[in-house]
Amino acid sequence: LDWKPNVVLLVGGVGGAKLAYGLEKILSPEQLTVIVNTGDDFWHYGLRICPDLDTITYTLSGLVDTVNGWGLAGDTTITLDALRRLGETPWFRLGDQDLATHILRTQWWHEGCSLTEITGRLTSALGIGCAVLPMTDVPVATMIATREHGELPFQVYFVKNRWQPVIQSIRLDGIERARVTPEIVRAVRAADVILIGPSNPWLSINPILSVPGMRELLTARQIPRVAVTPIINGKAVKGPTAKIMQELSLPLTAETVVDYYGEVINGFVFDERDQNLRASLPYSASMDTLMDSDEKRLALARNLLEWIRDWKRL
Amino acid sequence: LDWKPNVVLLVGGVGGAKLAYGLEKILSPEQLTVIVNTGDDFWHYGLRICPDLDTITYTLSGLVDTVNGWGLAGDTTITLDALRRLGETPWFRLGDQDLATHILRTQWWHEGCSLTEITGRLTSALGIGCAVLPMTDVPVATMIATREHGELPFQVYFVKNRWQPVIQSIRLDGIERARVTPEIVRAVRAADVILIGPSNPWLSINPILSVPGMRELLTARQIPRVAVTPIINGKAVKGPTAKIMQELSLPLTAETVVDYYGEVINGFVFDERDQNLRASLPYSASMDTLMDSDEKRLALARNLLEWIRDWKRL
Repeated sequence: LDWKPNVVLLVGGVGGAKLAYGLEKILSPEQLTVIVNTGDDFWHYGLRICPDLDTITYTLSGLVDTVNGWGLAGDTTITLDALRRLGETPWFRLGDQDLATHILRTQWWHEGCSLTEITGRLTSALGIGCAVLPMTDVPVATMIATREHGELPFQVYFVKNRWQPVIQSIRLDGIERARVTPEIVRAVRAADVILIGPSNPWLSINPILSVPGMRELLTARQIPRVAVTPIINGKAVKGPTAKIMQELSLPLTAETVVDYYGEVINGFVFDERDQNLRASLPYSASMDTLMDSDEKRLALARNLLEWIRDWKRL
Repeated sequence: LDWKPNVVLLVGGVGGAKLAYGLEKILSPEQLTVIVNTGDDFWHYGLRICPDLDTITYTLSGLVDTVNGWGLAGDTTITLDALRRLGETPWFRLGDQDLATHILRTQWWHEGCSLTEITGRLTSALGIGCAVLPMTDVPVATMIATREHGELPFQVYFVKNRWQPVIQSIRLDGIERARVTPEIVRAVRAADVILIGPSNPWLSINPILSVPGMRELLTARQIPRVAVTPIINGKAVKGPTAKIMQELSLPLTAETVVDYYGEVINGFVFDERDQNLRASLPYSASMDTLMDSDEKRLALARNLLEWIRDWKRL
């Protein structure tokens, strides 16, 4: 890449992690900052678990289980099996290697470390050079109102009930107390490009954008602010994005996502399989956004930044 | 055994666990209560770890690693290895199966459960019928004053420094706030026999006896109160008992232990290898106290209770 932009990437879990991985390979470490959804975070067996931060961290360190897209490659569940022997019925997979992350994070959490500091320590230990930042240091809990079960904490909806309950609405518990961190302010102010990964707009990106001050911080920057579609040909690559859109009675196309992000973005990347779609935005393009190999992750990252480089100055 | 006494046994870790195991095999569950030292308990990686309670629990459940005498048979250390990858240098062995115990205990601890209740849940889950009771529900920390390193928390002395520093004195931090639990009061009041296992008198049994009210509770009972020697032929079977006696300038014989327990006991069992020793107590005997097989654990338990059954009424 004959351009050295500072890139800020907003993501949730698996889909966003793939784009983060591609960007990390073509940028130098100080050029990339990944801002990660923490609305999925929860307490489980007394441990503070941050699924999206872990997915990003494990992906960037090359340790991720590439079949699932989350967790650690080759991880075992000996502790989980021992919990069953003690009468528990664990419903959230905690791998034995993975547990080390949760145990250390929880220890530091109780010692008073911020989640930003904790995440910095964990990513440094795993040799990750770019910045991985939680969307806020304040605990925020995504709560899912369902017809069948009432309001469920996110992981109870997502993992325990395998995202099968019908969503009525989404509430971000604690969001009014959340604050944009100084690290995020610095990264956004130094950014040349802001990207939104192909993550779930409602469950992964909206929590980030809902941190008080975040939208204003982003839209104050007169730079390319580009989202990559999470919808290809009316379907989500993975997870409940399409299902949620149906349940919220939204048209099942990428254009719905463009509208949802509104003034936060000024550019949008459709998938090349959706050539007929158009965004009422200054810039839009079509690319192969299906990152089903490391090569395609690098290719999308490169195509994105090359396209943005050639924009007329905003 | 043609006698059905209610037995209360005071113990520390490995040595006491062997006698508990023998007693558990020849008594019915409701006849046995094991009161366990908790001065060794500590926080490690945010987990509440109770080494003696775990050794007793794992031994009674038949899950113990019989080579070490502590920990779980066949346990692995995958999480510990992952902690090393995250930059830690763990010095206390935490097995993967073992971690399930610590994780559950810590969760329940933070939920406000007493250690007595927590231990009851864990032992029940593992099918242990007899009562395993912590000496108190109040955290007490055994602190070891050493010449080389100043005052060390017990596990730093015992595990990290492999009990090599020279002991100057022992302090029980928090003991003045400790209380005898209602469960212990009930068990002692219903006891026909009180036994002190062949545990370290200074490190394991003294913390139990130092819980305010414990000595009075025990000595108020006009029943056999018998200690089994932790010293055979001037040596400890395992651990630092003999080394500590030397460092505290105490004669290295079982008679020193008799004197140390004082009025708490009215009977003492020497090892048969120490036939020449005598206690100035109403009752003393010599037996094979080296419990190096399951058979010998049962045999010692049986010999002890049969000898006590034949005492003249106190």
